Amino acid sequence: MPDPDDLACAVAQTMLAREGAGAAWGLEIEAARQGYARAAMTIRADMLNGHGTAHGGMIFALADSAFAYACNSRNQATVAQHAAITFLSPVREGERLTAEAQERAVEGRSGVYDVVVRAGERVVAVFQGLSRTVGGALVETAGG
Amino acid sequence: MPDPDDLACAVAQTMLAREGAGAAWGLEIEAARQGYARAAMTIRADMLNGHGTAHGGMIFALADSAFAYACNSRNQATVAQHAAITFLSPVREGERLTAEAQERAVEGRSGVYDVVVRAGERVVAVFQGLSRTVGGALVETAGG
Amino acid sequence: MPDPDDLACAVAQTMLAREGAGAAWGLEIEAARQGYARAAMTIRADMLNGHGTAHGGMIFALADSAFAYACNSRNQATVAQHAAITFLSPVREGERLTAEAQERAVEGRSGVYDVVVRAGERVVAVFQGLSRTVGGALVETAGG
Amino acid sequence: MPDPDDLACAVAQTMLAREGAGAAWGLEIEAARQGYARAAMTIRADMLNGHGTAHGGMIFALADSAFAYACNSRNQATVAQHAAITFLSPVREGERLTAEAQERAVEGRSGVYDVVVRAGERVVAVFQGLSRTVGGALVETAGG
Repeated sequence: MPDPDDLACAVAQTMLAREGAGAAWGLEIEAARQGYARAAMTIRADMLNGHGTAHGGMIFALADSAFAYACNSRNQATVAQHAAITFLSPVREGERLTAEAQERAVEGRSGVYDVVVRAGERVVAVFQGLSRTVGGALVETAGG
Repeated sequence: MPDPDDLACAVAQTMLAREGAGAAWGLEIEAARQGYARAAMTIRADMLNGHGTAHGGMIFALADSAFAYACNSRNQATVAQHAAITFLSPVREGERLTAEAQERAVEGRSGVYDVVVRAGERVVAVFQGLSRTVGGALVETAGG
Repeated sequence: MPDPDDLACAVAQTMLAREGAGAAWGLEIEAARQGYARAAMTIRADMLNGHGTAHGGMIFALADSAFAYACNSRNQATVAQHAAITFLSPVREGERLTAEAQERAVEGRSGVYDVVVRAGERVVAVFQGLSRTVGGALVETAGG
Repeated sequence: MPDPDDLACAVAQTMLAREGAGAAWGLEIEAARQGYARAAMTIRADMLNGHGTAHGGMIFALADSAFAYACNSRNQATVAQHAAITFLSPVREGERLTAEAQERAVEGRSGVYDVVVRAGERVVAVFQGLSRTVGGALVETAGG
């Protein structure tokens, strides 16, 4: 049986390696532990909206990615059911964003995760996601 | 003074022409009227998550774009404060998604917009956005 | 097999008759059909917050009640998983509020319902609820 | 100038003393500090829904109250704009609920607050609120 935090790390890296989206966005996983993940990406010109600031969809996408790595961290396939985001400060091209996801509560197959998105020390968005575990492993482990 | 629906259309097209994000995603505006917009895009390999289905961030991004065109339709710069999305059905690579945004209520500088995202007739996500009008025109009009 | 709208009406009235909350609040069901319900109540002094306006909890409670009657309208026990409310206009003591709940989408055991809360013609809040059907009938029907 | 935590406490107690709702529900403030509040109440028969468990409106009302005391803690009148709640576990009559509200981020006049509602150690709901400061003091202070 692997260490829970090593397993969380392996799951997150496997998910990122398999997906087309994170790679296309230049997303990096900075940390992953059981019930926790931190991901980062830099806002490019092709991620800006019609007001010239980061598109809400890209800020959400980063937060949603950190949420996904955190809620799948026990190596049981888990999907997002619902997510909400509050935008607090506009983001400019070239800014590097970090999204930190933390498990808040798990009850049965449901989980709630909080994500804070920052540009440096500035909080640019706060996200909360509701997950549902559907089962099935994401990475193979020695113990099964 | 232009027709309100013509103005909404001009604003949406101007926003899309100015932004990097919509073009990068292949987003198209199918319709825009006062308080309403419909946008579409096709899910590509670089929009998939680690489960092999459309990344929630891209489904959100499409819904958020339709919301933005609808809430800016009166040519007064308006930003998203908060948005929430419920994911109802996974989306596969190659599916064309349509997001239809409809104004639900406006009170002072706040507005609430409902967006339904469909793949054909199938509802894949439901989104609700809260906007705040910050002022300033997006396109120039003869009357001002 | 009863008419779907008659069944919805019987379920809503049965739920209200069984519950302590609705009666305590003076809640009335104005209409109930399959996937739809409209409920009303008048804001009393014991429903005001520290700012002297209707407590958000009471506005939510009315919207949540209409949501519950609508999402249980097929006579299959259904519970709220998540709900969100946007407050658009303060409500004074003595105002009669109406909450109108409408089914937006159903997929498997999940459903999304929109509720608009009005004081006369004024929209005071917009609510969106996510339900999960857990099964079991609420009222007995001739056919079972 | 009073101590920030003493001021927060005075504001919360003043708000509760002025409101009709909290008293009607038997709500108690267990703690209040700057950006933080904890409130409690016991679920009574007149707070149950048609399924015989605590009405979602009452769980929300408790969370919303803790949120209100926390976001007004700087003695500047602040109102709820939006709030979302996830229900994780049903609550029975007689259970005492505690809602703990914590400031997550403040930017300009907007604030985001997380509230966790527990029955003993069991998390029964998670709530997130978005506030807007509208100004005006809630209690008089020596310094003004």
